[in-house]
Formats: sequence, C-alpha cells, structure tokens
Amino acid sequence: MATVKDFNWDKGMTVSELVARFGHIGFQSIELAKASETIVKMKKASAKIYLTFTSNMVTSGLRGFFAQLIALGMADVLVTTAGAIEEDIMKANGEKFLVGDFSAHDVALYEKGVNRVGNIYITNEQYARLENAMLPMLSKLYGKEKRWAVSVLLREIGLMVNDPCSILYQAARHEVPIFCPAITDGSLGFHLFLFQQKHPDFVVDVVADFRNILLSSSHDDVKGLISLGGSISKHHAILACLLNGGLDYAVYMTTARHTSGSMSGATTSEAKSWGKVKDDSDAVTVIGDVSITFPLAMVRALEVLSSEGVVKNA
Amino acid sequence: MATVKDFNWDKGMTVSELVARFGHIGFQSIELAKASETIVKMKKASAKIYLTFTSNMVTSGLRGFFAQLIALGMADVLVTTAGAIEEDIMKANGEKFLVGDFSAHDVALYEKGVNRVGNIYITNEQYARLENAMLPMLSKLYGKEKRWAVSVLLREIGLMVNDPCSILYQAARHEVPIFCPAITDGSLGFHLFLFQQKHPDFVVDVVADFRNILLSSSHDDVKGLISLGGSISKHHAILACLLNGGLDYAVYMTTARHTSGSMSGATTSEAKSWGKVKDDSDAVTVIGDVSITFPLAMVRALEVLSSEGVVKNA
Amino acid sequence: MATVKDFNWDKGMTVSELVARFGHIGFQSIELAKASETIVKMKKASAKIYLTFTSNMVTSGLRGFFAQLIALGMADVLVTTAGAIEEDIMKANGEKFLVGDFSAHDVALYEKGVNRVGNIYITNEQYARLENAMLPMLSKLYGKEKRWAVSVLLREIGLMVNDPCSILYQAARHEVPIFCPAITDGSLGFHLFLFQQKHPDFVVDVVADFRNILLSSSHDDVKGLISLGGSISKHHAILACLLNGGLDYAVYMTTARHTSGSMSGATTSEAKSWGKVKDDSDAVTVIGDVSITFPLAMVRALEVLSSEGVVKNA
Amino acid sequence: MATVKDFNWDKGMTVSELVARFGHIGFQSIELAKASETIVKMKKASAKIYLTFTSNMVTSGLRGFFAQLIALGMADVLVTTAGAIEEDIMKANGEKFLVGDFSAHDVALYEKGVNRVGNIYITNEQYARLENAMLPMLSKLYGKEKRWAVSVLLREIGLMVNDPCSILYQAARHEVPIFCPAITDGSLGFHLFLFQQKHPDFVVDVVADFRNILLSSSHDDVKGLISLGGSISKHHAILACLLNGGLDYAVYMTTARHTSGSMSGATTSEAKSWGKVKDDSDAVTVIGDVSITFPLAMVRALEVLSSEGVVKNA
Repeated sequence: MATVKDFNWDKGMTVSELVARFGHIGFQSIELAKASETIVKMKKASAKIYLTFTSNMVTSGLRGFFAQLIALGMADVLVTTAGAIEEDIMKANGEKFLVGDFSAHDVALYEKGVNRVGNIYITNEQYARLENAMLPMLSKLYGKEKRWAVSVLLREIGLMVNDPCSILYQAARHEVPIFCPAITDGSLGFHLFLFQQKHPDFVVDVVADFRNILLSSSHDDVKGLISLGGSISKHHAILACLLNGGLDYAVYMTTARHTSGSMSGATTSEAKSWGKVKDDSDAVTVIGDVSITFPLAMVRALEVLSSEGVVKNA
Repeated sequence: MATVKDFNWDKGMTVSELVARFGHIGFQSIELAKASETIVKMKKASAKIYLTFTSNMVTSGLRGFFAQLIALGMADVLVTTAGAIEEDIMKANGEKFLVGDFSAHDVALYEKGVNRVGNIYITNEQYARLENAMLPMLSKLYGKEKRWAVSVLLREIGLMVNDPCSILYQAARHEVPIFCPAITDGSLGFHLFLFQQKHPDFVVDVVADFRNILLSSSHDDVKGLISLGGSISKHHAILACLLNGGLDYAVYMTTARHTSGSMSGATTSEAKSWGKVKDDSDAVTVIGDVSITFPLAMVRALEVLSSEGVVKNA
Repeated sequence: MATVKDFNWDKGMTVSELVARFGHIGFQSIELAKASETIVKMKKASAKIYLTFTSNMVTSGLRGFFAQLIALGMADVLVTTAGAIEEDIMKANGEKFLVGDFSAHDVALYEKGVNRVGNIYITNEQYARLENAMLPMLSKLYGKEKRWAVSVLLREIGLMVNDPCSILYQAARHEVPIFCPAITDGSLGFHLFLFQQKHPDFVVDVVADFRNILLSSSHDDVKGLISLGGSISKHHAILACLLNGGLDYAVYMTTARHTSGSMSGATTSEAKSWGKVKDDSDAVTVIGDVSITFPLAMVRALEVLSSEGVVKNA
Repeated sequence: MATVKDFNWDKGMTVSELVARFGHIGFQSIELAKASETIVKMKKASAKIYLTFTSNMVTSGLRGFFAQLIALGMADVLVTTAGAIEEDIMKANGEKFLVGDFSAHDVALYEKGVNRVGNIYITNEQYARLENAMLPMLSKLYGKEKRWAVSVLLREIGLMVNDPCSILYQAARHEVPIFCPAITDGSLGFHLFLFQQKHPDFVVDVVADFRNILLSSSHDDVKGLISLGGSISKHHAILACLLNGGLDYAVYMTTARHTSGSMSGATTSEAKSWGKVKDDSDAVTVIGDVSITFPLAMVRALEVLSSEGVVKNA
C-alpha cells in the first residue's frame, strides 16, 4: 500500500513530477494523480475517449487545450453545450475575452456593455459580431441540405472555421464528432430561429443525433470518459455509453457535490448502480475547479504517453 | 434596518411562522425569507412566472408540488430536462420510487437491477414499463403531425396522462408550456430515436421551440423567475427573458457555487451584468438543497397569497 | 421500505407536518427528517446530549434557541468557541445586531465602524461596550480564585448574566457545562490578556477542563451528539465521547464537504473507523446551512417529545 | 487588462510555467496565479509572514513542505491545531501513514484498528506509540518549569525532535513560534491531562500566549498571511494582525463557502469590513483543495523568489 510522503520543492520541478508526488500528499491531490493515471490507462487500452465539458470552460483558456487534445488523438467524441460552440467560433474570429473580477460591480459592467462569466468578461460587441458571422454560414449549410443532424451541422461549421486553436476546426479535421443535445440553448438558438423564420423547411434534427452518438461506439469498444463539470454534457455521454454496455474508464472532474442527487454531482460509484460505469472499471472523481485540476492531470498523462510513444510530442 | 432576533420554539408553530422568523435568524435563513417574499411580490405584480427545475427534483417528491403549483397559477412557463418528463410519466403510470441510502453498495444495487439517484432508487423494471408506455403515445402523435415543436409535443403527451399529480397533466390543462431544450438527453431520446428509425419523416423541431419560448412573454410583461438547481433549464429561461428585456424578479435556489464560472452557480448579481436581471429588480440567491429550501419558501408564499385572496386555497 | 411521495401544500401546515413529509421528498430533506428522528431517539434513550456550535450561530438568532434548549433539557454539555461566549454576553447586555447584506461594500462598512459576519452586522461600539463589561466580571472572579478551569469560569460568568435568553445564563442555572477549548481565540482572549498583565498569577487552566469534559460522561452513559458546523467544537465533543467509548447517536449538520479530509467535513461514517461513533449507532449527516436545517429538525423533535410528555411545552 | 489565452501543453513544462499560464485560463486558476504573485510580493516587501493550517494538512504530505518553508524563511509565525502537533511528532518518530480510500468500509477499518482521515489511514498502534513518546518529553519540560505558554512549550518539544522534515524541528531552530490556541483538543490534551493528574502544579498558560502572538508583530511591521483551510488557526492569526493594524497581504485558500457566515468561509472582502485586511492590501481567496492549490502557488512563488535571489535554492 502506498504511503503518505513529505512533499518538498525541488528547483525547476516539472508538472509531471508534481503530479507524481500528488499521489502521496493526500485528499484531492491523490485523486488527481489517480485521474491522471486513469487517462494514461484508457489511452493505452485504445479506448474510445469521450470528452465532455460545459461552455464556461470554452470561455476560459481551456478552449485551446481541448483543440490540441483532439489533434493529439486524446478525444474521439465530444459532448458540450451551445455556449461552447458560440465562443469557440467567436475566438476563431479573433475575439479576445478579458480577465476580470468575480466581485465586479455588475450594474456598472452592464452600463459599459460588458457581460461577466465569473472572472471573465465578454462584450456586447463581441456577441454582435458573432451574429454577423452566423448568417452566411447557415445560408451556406442550407444550400446543401434542409435537415441537419446537430453533429453533422457542427462538422460543416468546423470546416468553415480557420483557426487551428479552434475545437470545431480540429474536430472537423480529425473526424471527431461534437454532440450538443441542447443546441438551441444560447445565442446560437436565436440565430437558428431567425434563419428558420425565413426558411421554414430548415430543420435541426436532434433525434438523428441520438442515433449518431449511439453509433459513435459499440458494445465491443473499450470506452473511456473524461467529464469536466456536470450538466447535460456529462449525462449525454454517460447515457450513450450505458446503452453500449457501460464505461471501462471514467474520470469525473467537478465542483458539484453528490448530496443533492444531481447529475452534476453524481459520483462514479452511483454510476455503477446504473451500469453506466462497469463495476471493475477504473473510475475516479476529482473535486475541484477544472481550470486547475484538468491541465494538471492531462499534462502529466501526456508526458507519460509521449515518453512511451503513444502520443506524439506537442 | 431589521435586527437579528432570538429564535424560540412555540408549540404548534406553522411553516409560515417559521419562515417569517427566518428573516431574523441569519445567513441563508435570511435569504430564504427574502426569496419567499420575492415570490409573493412577483405574483402580486402579475408577473409571468418561469419555473425551472432539474430532473432529480422530479425524481423526488417535489414533483407533486410542481403539479399543484401549476394548478394554483403559480407557474406560467416551465423549463426542465428530459429526465423530468420521463419520471413524471412513470409516476403517472403508478411507479413508486424508493427512499434509499446515499452510501449504498452500488455494485450490489446494480446486481439487483436498482438504479440510484442520490438516496432514491428506481428499478430497471420501472424503466422497462416506461418503454412500453412511450410507443403508443408517439404513434398517436405521429398520426396527427410529422413535425413537432417540443413544447407542443409535451402538451399532447400531457393530455394523454391521467394523473392530477402529474406536471404534464396540469401543464396541459392550464396552458402552461413545458420547454425542454435537450429533449433527447434521456431514455426519452432513445424512444424518439427508435420511433424515427421506423418513421424517418418524424421530426422533433427544437428551433421552433426557441420561437415559442421567445413568444412566451413580451417586453411589456412583468417577468419573474424561480430557478431550482442549475444547468440548461436555468440558462434557457434566463436567455428567453433576457431577449425580452430582462427579469423583474428572480429567485435562484441552488447548491452550486459561483467561483467556477458555471451557469449553475451564477448569481443574480452576475446576471445583472448581462441585463438578464434588471438592475432594480428583486433578486435573491438561496444556497442549499432545494428539497428543503423550496417547500419552505413556497409554502410561506402560498399562505400569504391565499390569506390575501391572490391564490385560492389548497 | 419507504417510498417517495408527492409533496403538497395544505393550508396552515405546521413545521412538524412538513418535516414528517420531508422524509418522503428526497435528498437532504430525507436526511433532515432522519436527523430529527435521531434527536427524538437520543432524548427518549436518556442519552447525555452534547450540543456543539460555532460562534457565527450565536451571532445569529439561533442563540436564543440554544438557551431555550438548555432550559428544556435538550442539551447536557455544550462545546463552542470564544466568539460565541462574547456575543452571548453582548446580547445579554442588550446589543442588537443588524440584518445586513452578503454583498455589502466592505470598505464602506469599515469606514462606518461596521463589522460584517456574512449578512449580519456588528458595530465597533458594541465591541467597545463588551470591553467595559468584561473587566468587572474578571475582577470579581479573580477575587475568588486565581486559577480557573474554563468551564468553571464560564459558569461563574453565566451566574452574573441577567438574561433568560442567554446561553451562559441558562447553562449556569441548569448545571450544563460549557467547554471552550480555544477560549483565548477572540476579543475575550484580549481581555484575559489585559487582566493577566496586571495580575500575573491569574491563570486559565485548559488542561483541567480536559479532565472536566472527560468526566462529563462515563462509558456507561448513553451518549448523543448534535454537532452544528465544524471546527474545534465538533472535534472536542467527539474526542471526549471517543475516550468514553463512543457515541450511540450522532447528528452532524454542516456545509463542509468530506472530500478534503477536514474535521468540519468529516462524516459519521468516517467517525466509525475511529470508534467515535459506534458501528450500530443512529448516525446521520445533513448538508446545509444550519440556520435553516437545525430549527426544522429540532422543532419537529420538540413537538414529538412534548406530545409524548418527554419534554415540557415551550 | 489581461486577456484569456488558449492553454497548450509544451513537453517538459515546469510548474512555474503552468502557474504563469493559469493567470490567463479562467476562474480559480486565475485566482491561484494571483495568490502566487501575492506571496512573492509579501516576501519581497519583507513582510512578517503568518502561515496557518489545519491538522489534516499535517496528516498529508504537506507536512514536509511546511518544514521546508520554515527553513527557507517563508514563514515567520505559525498557527495550527493540536492534531498537527501530534502528527508532526508521530512522523518525526518514523510513523508512516497510508494512502487509503474515501469510500472505505469504515466498520471494517475499525475492526482492523485503522482510523481514516479522508483518504489517509492512521493505525491505533501509531497513536499508542505517540503516548509513549509524550510522557518523557513532558517530564523533561516539567523539570524546567511548572507553567508554560503554549508556544514556548512547543519550541522546547521542537528542540527534542530529531527530524529535519519536522515542522516543530525547523520552527524551533529558526525562531518561528508555533501558536496553538486549542492545544488540548487532541490526544495531546489527553497526555497533558494525565500529566497534570500526577503534577497538579503543571499549568499550560494560554493567556500568556495571547500576549506572545500579539508581540509577534508590531503596527509598523508589514504583515502577510497565508491561511490554509479555516477554523481557529485562520481566525487566530487574523485576530492578532487586526490588533496590530491589519494585514498588508492576505492569501486565503479554502474549500469553505462564504454563504453561511463562518470564519472558515469568510472572504478577504469581509475581512476588510473589520480592518483585518487593509483596504488597499493585496488580498486573494482561492477556492479549492489545499493539497493541490498550495503546492502550485508556493512552488511558483519559490521559483520566482529564488531566481531573484530572495530565497535560497532548495
């Protein structure tokens, strides 16, 4: 059995060394080290990897990391929400979000046309420019087809995007489908509505995408999940994997607690009662802010995998 | 300015008296008393009331309370997730969920065919019976139309349900639309998929429902929100109200924290930066488990409103 | 096995009825109902009841409730922190604390001489008047003895206090010892220090009080704990009971989570590994703000106990 | 104003580089980067640095890091709880704690004599050996003096300890006082009690230590606080600094939330209303598990400070 070991600073310590030592510190640092190890295992087992995240993570600088992970072959299927799609496109179009303050004076921000997401600011102008970008893209899509499964539509948008740091860009070029079961829940929904007003035969087919996510893996595939945050993104990936026999590897990273029975806070243990996570799977829950825990766990995993030649270098 | 007052037990104390005294205890009890008062105000101002909740609350016994609130005129628009729809139908069909244990042995539950949601148990048989119930309903709907906006489809289902304690039943009978932007994210999605496999022209039109929720209130309406839990349900109602000029009254009840920039934890203050909540609105956030905080705040509000003749008695 | 039941509002519903129904709603409402039942059981088993709370609960209106519970025989031993002692005395001297705002402008408050504890305000003047009250009390005590065990000193102070809503007042009159292992951690510490500067032979003997809390129950006593919040108060009571063979009944009410290995978040399950809580005990943890959960659980318990003649009416 | 930047993995990335990029990711990663910068600033301003932590952090591998920080001159005053003292001595005597499991079967652990602290295990034998170690140390102290201020007693114990990874060892050798206002709240309290039974004139003087912590800095000193976790340790350091004019720099790292009015969750903003933190101070609160957040923030600070020659290399 592993022992707790005194942690010490060594000059020039790498992230990989730190996370290795986390396994001997205690509490969530131990769980984080386990999560990193589970990511290594799922990749080495050639698992089909489902990566899910909420839109605020795309508001944050994790957006570029998600794109890099797709390029490195660390994600085979994505599930997210409408806000993530919008903000990925905004950033691909050159928008810069600002580092702000959790305790800003919100009415003052409003008067300046600044919208706050925690300690990140987005301006009204940035949203207005998204509006201008969406219409030509939707028109082009409509020229091809009238009825679109969501993931197919997002793939086409990804092919129109011209930014290698974009999630949509990399996903489209690496055959990684992006599922977004609540595609209308954002300004994207508003743009789709405006477009449908003029083109009533334009249809976004969410049911067809249920078929697509079901077919994204089979009972025979080894399946792994990296779920960041909670909500629909987490649930949808788990549901698809449940219907295909359950997950072999699962990493949940969240701040939500299990005590209120929510999906966001549901643990990998609860998932076993459903068969969502197989009873002999490697499964770990890390409690903490994903902006901190995910880069740590994933950077360590990438260092290990690249040293073993499983992923190429950055 | 109000003062903190020593709380004392009086024999036979009513819920309404307790919540009134909460306003003088401290911390979240004060916020809960404010939330209750805000609900009273929004109703007396004839606000259009948006009530949002996550599916685990329908797993719980709050389900019957939501149905009662619709019947009492305390909710004009609902927003929720697929699981809530499924479980409301299951309960309408007579299924009883069991009170269980947060720390159950989950693998043992799995082997018995029991699925755990926090401390509530649902069996595999109960889900199987839902499957049998869905097909005839979908067939009937398909006989009427091929293309359905989600809220219209849910209204039709509600008319087929025969249980006054059902949310769908009461909503259908009181012209209260139920919006469910991620309708496929549940076993409902699976049933819709199976149906579409046989009937490829069957379409669930989520974009049309964006129009419907936009039209569910106008700029001129006074608008109030009671948001229970976070996720898409919360965001979707706020988004619709933002596009119609923002909320005049807002009550958020959640366990999520604001420190990670998630929608679930976003405060009414953050909402003001967006114009989601008007800067002079009555807005309050109560931190705590909704299974406790919501009955308290709402029962007190109902007692006040019924004593003033604004709502009829239970 | 109990089932989940639809909750409904009935006009005039009492707190006791609500908490009874909580047992069938779900999530923390179920745990709260169990906590209430556990309090009933410990009292009916004539357990020695340890009640622990942090100082912010005495800042709040729960202070008068704690005093009432002592008078009703619902607490046999108290453990708390220095701030709780100070603020109980301040309130006994007529100080009124104000209901304020969590999101107040703190620098502006500072300039007005207002100190914020969450959403409660205390003024500098109120602290200054405490200073004036402490010196004569300490002088009187010093006239009797030079060396004081903390709980004995607090009993003497309680006898000088003249307010039936005071914890110190009721505890002194009902032979309920108050333990305060960190007696110097507050302005009380400062007053003791000033006094000792003039009277170097004045000693507060914390080791003697360890003996006193050990002797506050025996191995043979049935022992129950109601722990509100975390910290030293919780730990100290548990430690004393562990040394006397462990608890037969335990109710923990807290907002802290178990995931960081802290005492504040430690569960009754973890306590079993230590023998702090006996393995066949009735033990329950309720997650939520104590200003809401404790009055609910305790009022229900009091109603049941008074209806059975175990406690006298309020 | 800083902008959000896409994060990317670079092979061999150091902890210092990661934390620098955290400043551009979002949410708590930004606050963590600020905390690290604030630690750099307080050290470069020659602030008197107060470091506070709860006992579970000494259960964890952070214990050796605290000792190293004292040796490096990064902490001038410590405040902690009794458990931290005990476990530092146990580890100095060679005890190894085990890495365990949050969801262990606690009754089974109890039967094996294993005590669980989150996911760390300590055995009954390890506690028994502490008992044997304490008596000779207390006897030796008693030979010198009958009445001991806590910090003076802990310094003497530190001089008897022979392990450079020990907090007590390094503190004693670097003139860093350790304050422990609740010294009896642990098995240490039990040993002190046993000793006092035989030697009634043995006194632990907590009031004298209030004087000592007051004199640990002056109004003129620049003062900085690094508070890990909450509870008495946090409060006591803040109180001492308040009485000396308030803090110039403050870093709070905790998992507690501010919404219940507890000291553990109290923010640096609330502290400003009291004058605990000066209104123009550098103050930052990082929400997350300290076993992860503290090594990150501090390692980055040490790298910066050592590159500038302010601290010596590890």
